Amino acid sequence: GKLLVVPMDGSHWFTMQSVVEKLILRGHEVVVVMPEVSWQLGRSLNCTVKTYSTSYTLEDQDREFMVFADARWTAPLRSAFSLLTSSSNGIFDLFFSNCRSLFNDRKLVEYLKESCFDAVFLDPFDACGLIVAKYFSLPSVVFARGIFCHYLEEGAQCPAPLSYVPRLLLGFSDAMTFKERVWNHIMHLEEHLFCPYFFKNVLEIASEILQTPVTAYDLYSHTSIWLLRTDFVLEYPKPVMPNMIFIGGINCHQGKPVPMEFEAYINASGEHGIVVFSLGSMVSEIPEKKAMAIADALGKIPQTVLWRYTGTRPSNLANNTILVKWLPQNDLLGHPMTRAFITHAGSHGVYESICNGVPMVMMPLFGDQMDNAKRMETKGAGVTLNVLEMTSEDLENALKAVINDKSYKENIMRLSSLHKDRPVEPLDLAVFWVEFVMRHKGAPHLRPAAHDLTWYQYHSLDVIGFLLAVVLTVAFITFKCCAYGYRKCLGKKGRVKKAHKSKTH
Amino acid sequence: GKLLVVPMDGSHWFTMQSVVEKLILRGHEVVVVMPEVSWQLGRSLNCTVKTYSTSYTLEDQDREFMVFADARWTAPLRSAFSLLTSSSNGIFDLFFSNCRSLFNDRKLVEYLKESCFDAVFLDPFDACGLIVAKYFSLPSVVFARGIFCHYLEEGAQCPAPLSYVPRLLLGFSDAMTFKERVWNHIMHLEEHLFCPYFFKNVLEIASEILQTPVTAYDLYSHTSIWLLRTDFVLEYPKPVMPNMIFIGGINCHQGKPVPMEFEAYINASGEHGIVVFSLGSMVSEIPEKKAMAIADALGKIPQTVLWRYTGTRPSNLANNTILVKWLPQNDLLGHPMTRAFITHAGSHGVYESICNGVPMVMMPLFGDQMDNAKRMETKGAGVTLNVLEMTSEDLENALKAVINDKSYKENIMRLSSLHKDRPVEPLDLAVFWVEFVMRHKGAPHLRPAAHDLTWYQYHSLDVIGFLLAVVLTVAFITFKCCAYGYRKCLGKKGRVKKAHKSKTH
Repeated sequence: GKLLVVPMDGSHWFTMQSVVEKLILRGHEVVVVMPEVSWQLGRSLNCTVKTYSTSYTLEDQDREFMVFADARWTAPLRSAFSLLTSSSNGIFDLFFSNCRSLFNDRKLVEYLKESCFDAVFLDPFDACGLIVAKYFSLPSVVFARGIFCHYLEEGAQCPAPLSYVPRLLLGFSDAMTFKERVWNHIMHLEEHLFCPYFFKNVLEIASEILQTPVTAYDLYSHTSIWLLRTDFVLEYPKPVMPNMIFIGGINCHQGKPVPMEFEAYINASGEHGIVVFSLGSMVSEIPEKKAMAIADALGKIPQTVLWRYTGTRPSNLANNTILVKWLPQNDLLGHPMTRAFITHAGSHGVYESICNGVPMVMMPLFGDQMDNAKRMETKGAGVTLNVLEMTSEDLENALKAVINDKSYKENIMRLSSLHKDRPVEPLDLAVFWVEFVMRHKGAPHLRPAAHDLTWYQYHSLDVIGFLLAVVLTVAFITFKCCAYGYRKCLGKKGRVKKAHKSKTH
Repeated sequence: GKLLVVPMDGSHWFTMQSVVEKLILRGHEVVVVMPEVSWQLGRSLNCTVKTYSTSYTLEDQDREFMVFADARWTAPLRSAFSLLTSSSNGIFDLFFSNCRSLFNDRKLVEYLKESCFDAVFLDPFDACGLIVAKYFSLPSVVFARGIFCHYLEEGAQCPAPLSYVPRLLLGFSDAMTFKERVWNHIMHLEEHLFCPYFFKNVLEIASEILQTPVTAYDLYSHTSIWLLRTDFVLEYPKPVMPNMIFIGGINCHQGKPVPMEFEAYINASGEHGIVVFSLGSMVSEIPEKKAMAIADALGKIPQTVLWRYTGTRPSNLANNTILVKWLPQNDLLGHPMTRAFITHAGSHGVYESICNGVPMVMMPLFGDQMDNAKRMETKGAGVTLNVLEMTSEDLENALKAVINDKSYKENIMRLSSLHKDRPVEPLDLAVFWVEFVMRHKGAPHLRPAAHDLTWYQYHSLDVIGFLLAVVLTVAFITFKCCAYGYRKCLGKKGRVKKAHKSKTH
């Protein structure tokens, strides 16, 4: 078939690329549309790549992201309101402007129109893929770890009872206290109030392109299949819809032997083994004071620590800690001598830890990281540290606990065996469903009738109102009849008494 | 692993048996526990079969079922109330008594206790498998087309918005009118009110066996995995839970060449082809008047009709209609010369029709048949007739429509291609999940936290109540302050006016 791919830059592209490559291998004609400026997109792709010029440079993108990432060391994003009002939102505006740039490129738009694609395979982060799918009326497959705000529940019409399904960014578990459940409701209200503002620019662009007022629901509800990079080893079990396919762990792959350089470190670590430490591809600089506290803690454990870090080298780095610009994370985590993984709890890292059965010390920074960390913690697979408040001692204790307390290893091994015990591999499942949508021009049989109801019809407020009215009316009439009957009876007794009185006087 | 199987008699066992046989082939040690008296259970099973004596004979079972099936020709079961108050419920009481018989057999119970099974694979129809699983605290895999009343939603804590998810037995579609949505709510209320009575006997038996008061929720909520014999080609899309696995069409298998006798009929049918007619294994006698009306209609179409019927031969049977005691239904439906399938719309028959792409004329009688028929009708794959009111002409018109109007064939072929396009075959999926539960002693990671909430917590009535109270209190205080301020201002103006008046006099 013929597939249009609208990817998202950064770590999102790592796993989407593996699906695109497999589809190319299976003989599909793939066209990737992406911004000229990007960190990781399009490299070494064996298919047609169409780029469009952007209103910003790579330096702008780097700068804005640094502002966003640095801000996370001081102001965590724990709600829709903080997301909206955060001063470090420049990066979102850059990404959200992509679609205007794409549609300004008339030649590209013409090319896309004439190409008669069978489907769009998209990352919804900057909403451009969603706009493209709607503009060309193409069935679409969304590829994402999660979706901003409440737009997954709304777009897929999927119930998410607030009593035990925690909202994103809150870092709650599914066993919430009364206070947390109240906060969960408030957060949901906040999402409904503030998320439309957070999306204001991109919805304006969408309305401009589609030449009709467009809401976020209009964009998200067009989706045929949701490929979600999670599963219920990570996620708490909750209601889902039939067109939601769970491909968590798609980034895991069989560990390869580590390069000699790293094998040497491991051998030198003796019986204590090693600890792998990486805050992901998106975090390059840690505030100095914080970096020194971390370096201090790392020096207090007997293991050798391999720390992927591109920032300035902390002056108090201990001998057991080796700084590297890059490390083969998955292969190291697959090595039997690896005792623990210090991570920011991004979903890729967490799944590599699950797949390789390595307990974690988690320092969540932004996005879904707080939620991933909470889930792993409540499942006994690691310890979470608040990166803002943690001291060197906190990190030291957490590391020693995770390495020496056997329960962490047992729990992560149990999660690992549950996760890897599945009828189909995530990558094959993802490829199957993209091809399914291409073959059948979407998946209309999986689209719930809820999309055709208003919100008050969906919640049956009209029916409940009607039934209440009927019940109240019946109750009122019954009451009136009884009252009337009662008065009638009372009236008679009254006359009898009077008659009796007049006789006795 | 070691698996205990608690099956249900009748057509339920057809497909469950295929899963059991594959598990035996894969080297699992399987023990089937079943009543001594049964229609189809246990025959030619290559594993240990343990039977227990029942309080009824096969004749009793036949008689009670005949009463139940015959009653359907006069009084359809269209609600929980009609189910409860129907005079033809004897068959349920027989089946519900099975568990007492099983647990009265002390030797068998002892055997089961010592056998240390890894899991129970059960059909929940007579609830005995559920009781056995709870009694021996074994993880359980439920195998069913659907579950009585609201016990699937409750047992799996799965939302089913009444605005677009029709309740069982009503035969509504997912696009309900206001009136139908009101009726859907009333039916749901009825389920909550009457189903506990319908289950009264079996819950008493369960409480006796488990030596503690037991509700239907207690029995159903123990389930690790729900293997549901449906999918969203048949079912309307609706919310599901992660431990629900859809294996609709598990009964389909590649059509084999039909026996010579039937090939001869087909060849003799010329270019018109044949129509297959069967009301399933459970319906052996049609009221005479009805049978004659049917025979009359069948005589008016050019196709040859192969009618599986064990009742008395209608006197007006036309030459094109051949009565047989048995027919290779799936293989006939797979034959290119088959034009239509007249069926009672049981799920097995409907899936064989979907798998082979044969449009249907449906005469639903009981259970899920009305719902299956409505679904196929709204998807354009057949015509439904009300078996009580239908005339010979109705049947004739329906047959001619389904055979001659190409849209029916196109729709059923589209459903067929959607249904058969899946990453894993239903039988393999069912085997995988039974083995999963055996390997991991259940699927605790798929059990939602909703099970630990009360009904008012689940619906957040406590949180909503609290927030409302806060809002009202704040509103009240604000109102009071404004009123106080207003009075204060008004009071001042009053004094100023008075002072002004006294000056001017």
